[in-house]
Amino acid sequence: MDQGDRSVTGDIAGYMRELGRAAREAARALARADTATKDRALRAMAAEIRARAAELQEANRADLEQARKNGQDAALVDRLTLDTPAIEQMAEGLEQVAALDDPVGRITGLRRRPTGIEVGRMRVPIGVIGIIYESRPNVTADAAGLCLKAGNACILRGGSEALHSNQAIAACVRAGLRTAGLPEAAVQVVATAERAAVGALITMNAYVDIIVPRGGKELIERLARESRIPMIKHLEGVCHVYIDEAADPEMAVRIADNAKTQRYGTCNTMETLLVAEAMAPKVLPEIGAIFANKGVEMRADEASRRLLPGAKAATEDDYYTEWLAPVVSIRVVKGLDEAMAHIARYGSQHTDAIVTSDRSRAERFLREVDSSSVMVNASTRFADGFEYGLGAEIGISTDKLHARGPVGLEGLTTQKYVVLGHGEVRR
Amino acid sequence: MDQGDRSVTGDIAGYMRELGRAAREAARALARADTATKDRALRAMAAEIRARAAELQEANRADLEQARKNGQDAALVDRLTLDTPAIEQMAEGLEQVAALDDPVGRITGLRRRPTGIEVGRMRVPIGVIGIIYESRPNVTADAAGLCLKAGNACILRGGSEALHSNQAIAACVRAGLRTAGLPEAAVQVVATAERAAVGALITMNAYVDIIVPRGGKELIERLARESRIPMIKHLEGVCHVYIDEAADPEMAVRIADNAKTQRYGTCNTMETLLVAEAMAPKVLPEIGAIFANKGVEMRADEASRRLLPGAKAATEDDYYTEWLAPVVSIRVVKGLDEAMAHIARYGSQHTDAIVTSDRSRAERFLREVDSSSVMVNASTRFADGFEYGLGAEIGISTDKLHARGPVGLEGLTTQKYVVLGHGEVRR
Repeated sequence: MDQGDRSVTGDIAGYMRELGRAAREAARALARADTATKDRALRAMAAEIRARAAELQEANRADLEQARKNGQDAALVDRLTLDTPAIEQMAEGLEQVAALDDPVGRITGLRRRPTGIEVGRMRVPIGVIGIIYESRPNVTADAAGLCLKAGNACILRGGSEALHSNQAIAACVRAGLRTAGLPEAAVQVVATAERAAVGALITMNAYVDIIVPRGGKELIERLARESRIPMIKHLEGVCHVYIDEAADPEMAVRIADNAKTQRYGTCNTMETLLVAEAMAPKVLPEIGAIFANKGVEMRADEASRRLLPGAKAATEDDYYTEWLAPVVSIRVVKGLDEAMAHIARYGSQHTDAIVTSDRSRAERFLREVDSSSVMVNASTRFADGFEYGLGAEIGISTDKLHARGPVGLEGLTTQKYVVLGHGEVRR
Repeated sequence: MDQGDRSVTGDIAGYMRELGRAAREAARALARADTATKDRALRAMAAEIRARAAELQEANRADLEQARKNGQDAALVDRLTLDTPAIEQMAEGLEQVAALDDPVGRITGLRRRPTGIEVGRMRVPIGVIGIIYESRPNVTADAAGLCLKAGNACILRGGSEALHSNQAIAACVRAGLRTAGLPEAAVQVVATAERAAVGALITMNAYVDIIVPRGGKELIERLARESRIPMIKHLEGVCHVYIDEAADPEMAVRIADNAKTQRYGTCNTMETLLVAEAMAPKVLPEIGAIFANKGVEMRADEASRRLLPGAKAATEDDYYTEWLAPVVSIRVVKGLDEAMAHIARYGSQHTDAIVTSDRSRAERFLREVDSSSVMVNASTRFADGFEYGLGAEIGISTDKLHARGPVGLEGLTTQKYVVLGHGEVRR
């Protein structure tokens, strides 16, 4: 099958099975590939992307025209656009992945057992990863690079609005794989906009080991319901900052400001500010002035509103809401226990922070708040693969199993037991 | 709701939701509990089990009578029986779990990032674990102990044939929890034999974080199809031993013998023996004599049969089969590549071993065979939580994600990111 074919029609399920079969076969070759070979492929992909910048932009123009014809909004057109800096960023991203440590093959915890065998764990690729994403075509290169470095084959299904751009990027990726002598089926980009392709991808568990969906909450919830394959999924970030009565007021104001206003549209942005009753008079007026000054709408409970003249009354629903906008929910709580109860009830187990100089309350918060990232005296905006030192991330997992929080190369691998014996048998 | 009520009828889904809600609440208390408290509960449970041995046996007699009345086979009746040694074993098992290291709260990999924040990962409980198992009532105590030590609440659904025994054990478990001041809902044993309880348990993802099914392959496949909750599941063990051309013949014979005949019914028993062409004449006649002597039926390919006068011709299906019996499939292969191709095709990714003194082939086997345990020069029978030093196991996972291979306390926990800051904000 010509993977570059842009007009797949007819038997979508059969087409997807063929991709799956080829991916499974390629995964075995990738698991064997050494680090130097994988890095050579990544650098060759980057070189191809730079060399074919004009082709990429031509393909992208076709998608952009179609998007405008379909009356898509400016934000979508913006995300879809592959201009020169965006193309250079894709190439640099691949080179950065090449520079990361290869997690595959590392053996940890090896120890001799009383029977004489040595038992440890080896980090190995997962196998075949399916990624479903929306309009940004750069994800095609980013995801291909991360999956490849972790030794996995991948099947990428981008948004239909980016079909031409994604296929053009895929051609660069395949050329890079060829240069390094790796199978082209190591990275396959679904060449059809038919929705049935997604349905096939999330159910063919003989060929796909894990699905990483990237997109809005509704899309991910629907995929999770229908999938027969485990997912690394990111639902939403209803992140909290709790200002404890033992907080340094200046630090508390700085963190609340940064967590909300440094960027509004990101999943690690604070959506609800909780303040201990005893601290509220010392910090809320100043925080309120900053928010008012930056045009952040405040939805607050009664106790907060006494200190925040510009705030609206918050509804119950407001506390469940991921605003992703210059809006913030605010609430005064008695103290740590009430703050943690609020987070347990309204939060999304993404990222929550406490501001305090009290060590035992900080430790309780770290231990008891059941979120993928828990922080003391730092802005929630740090919850990010780059900030954590993972090098790059395929997403942030709000699931608890396998990978939790920012998912980098390690989250795209698994561990198996290795037993090194000397002829031992069981008695 | 009286958790000791043995006659739940009517609204099963409502009853299960109530168990779920209570478990979720108890899980928060357990996550806070320190190691000493959990260990006190475990030891108190052991004491209760010993003190109430007569009650346990009375309850067990009711199950045994019912089983005989229902015409259950002797093997099931045997598994169901709680005699004095079985009761003592349950108590000792709980004490052994109390003696294991507590994984919860351990922070690893803490390092300072260029921004000043310190980032690490903390091991934490998963939350609520649902366990579905069949006739052996001792699983009730074993699973309760492991879940509790890892800081999880659990909902246990044993086989209907063990309902009275399980409820009697549950009473001991609750008494132990009470003694330590932990919520009784930390361990709840479903008090109904209605099948609808299982359907409810595997779909109430608001209350249950993970399902551990223990039972036959058909049961587990069905649960996996219907579950809306991630599973740690064990499908089957089609385990291989490959005798390489560079094997020590004496060691090869010993390992092949042990891997097949030390116990027939276990999942880590060898089901297929693969032998390199060049080595076959040196080992197969002796192995064949041992198997014949022990009454092990051999199903072999043509090349093997020339060296194994008593062997039957193997069918394609034989190589896919988990015999769990004194039957073994045998095949001569050209060498390592053909052996690994056979394992990839017919195996179940459970446990596979190579016997060789060639280091580079051993390393290729370790790296490339995609199974939960890969071994060099050791019997597959070692694939076991106790042998690996995990202390105890809740099962052996043939899944790739989260937990792979024998699952002990660590597999019942997850990791979250912790960020220790000093007022840092994102630039």
